[in-house]
Amino acid sequence: MLILGIETSAVSAGAALVRDGKLISESFLNVGLTHSETLMEVVDSCLQNAGVAVGDVDAFAVSKGPGSFTGVRIGVSAVKGLAFGTGKPVYGISTLEAMACGAALDAYLICPVMDARCMQVYSALFRSENGELKRLLPDAPRKLAELREELAPFDGTVLFLGDGADLAASWFSDKPEIKFCVFPEIFKYQRAAGVAFAASMRYNEGDMGETAAALTPSYLRLSQAEREKQRRTQ
Amino acid sequence: MLILGIETSAVSAGAALVRDGKLISESFLNVGLTHSETLMEVVDSCLQNAGVAVGDVDAFAVSKGPGSFTGVRIGVSAVKGLAFGTGKPVYGISTLEAMACGAALDAYLICPVMDARCMQVYSALFRSENGELKRLLPDAPRKLAELREELAPFDGTVLFLGDGADLAASWFSDKPEIKFCVFPEIFKYQRAAGVAFAASMRYNEGDMGETAAALTPSYLRLSQAEREKQRRTQ
Repeated sequence: MLILGIETSAVSAGAALVRDGKLISESFLNVGLTHSETLMEVVDSCLQNAGVAVGDVDAFAVSKGPGSFTGVRIGVSAVKGLAFGTGKPVYGISTLEAMACGAALDAYLICPVMDARCMQVYSALFRSENGELKRLLPDAPRKLAELREELAPFDGTVLFLGDGADLAASWFSDKPEIKFCVFPEIFKYQRAAGVAFAASMRYNEGDMGETAAALTPSYLRLSQAEREKQRRTQ
Repeated sequence: MLILGIETSAVSAGAALVRDGKLISESFLNVGLTHSETLMEVVDSCLQNAGVAVGDVDAFAVSKGPGSFTGVRIGVSAVKGLAFGTGKPVYGISTLEAMACGAALDAYLICPVMDARCMQVYSALFRSENGELKRLLPDAPRKLAELREELAPFDGTVLFLGDGADLAASWFSDKPEIKFCVFPEIFKYQRAAGVAFAASMRYNEGDMGETAAALTPSYLRLSQAEREKQRRTQ
């Protein structure tokens, strides 16, 4: 089972190939260029390095959100195109769940956080039991003060990762009631490897994915334009 | 400060660019092809995705061993060529230390292990203090029983990673006196990102690297041919 994963939900972009649960190729890029310029080159290098053609891929996976509206749209659109062109199934994976896959360590409460602007973060919480993830909090946009309240009932050290990890670490630095640390720098950001790996685990659990047409993004909140329209019409 | 790191010490191959301590591009490949066929394509894709030319790189870094004799020679030779051609300095990084950089988590005793065949592993041990690595055991080839003896005095859960992690986990599974777990699958293997990041930390500490001519591999033991010659002449 060969799965190509794509990650464009924030500033970093990536593509990864997972074969039968093992990562065989990954291209990761975090240079601030727009994904529309870089994504297909990143996908191409990931496939070419491994000597794999698009037609060899059995299923596609994408971080379907939360994340940047434009970023999520680019990733979801790219995967819809690839899957539609080849007739293969797709897996839409929570960006936060994909991140947690790379940090599944029993010693921590695993808290992926993405900068959602306006002092909000997209976040979730997981616990790992022998490396298997159990979800403790749903994906949601939260103010950092709300995240603090939701973390408070859980015992243990919180492990922040994602592009909001430094923001969270800075905000929590004067809140001693929450013990925390940050995942190592080189693996801290959103990774396509996590997306492809999460899809691979779904497949192992009997989930056959969905069609390209059925895949939808998961923004978790209205866009700024929609929020402003709603405010004007209230 | 832009550093290109190369990792070919075992089956996986990789190239990574770290700019001022931040990973900006990484290509990782684990398909079992020989590095002599794949390495330069992997390096090329890492640079091209980031829009970086070889001449833009300020320093080169390589995992200088321990590892496969052929793998280490290919990586060290490639970096010598790149550095000699551009007149830039090089950093020779312990393969095990590079791995530990990606797993610097205070909750664990960090134990990178590489399969050295003949029931031996190349291994080392580190502790992390606020994400900063402290070395507890030197790089060495050890029988798994020797590793057990050397781990015994340390309190805490051992975190195995590297291409010997599964071998170690299997061997230690019936030794309950050592508590252990294995790093998440997608980040478990040797990564060029760790090599470039370790070099970047050396630079921050004032280490300006060495010349291409001065760089030497660190095999930690004699090759099989040398061991056999030694046995015949004893």
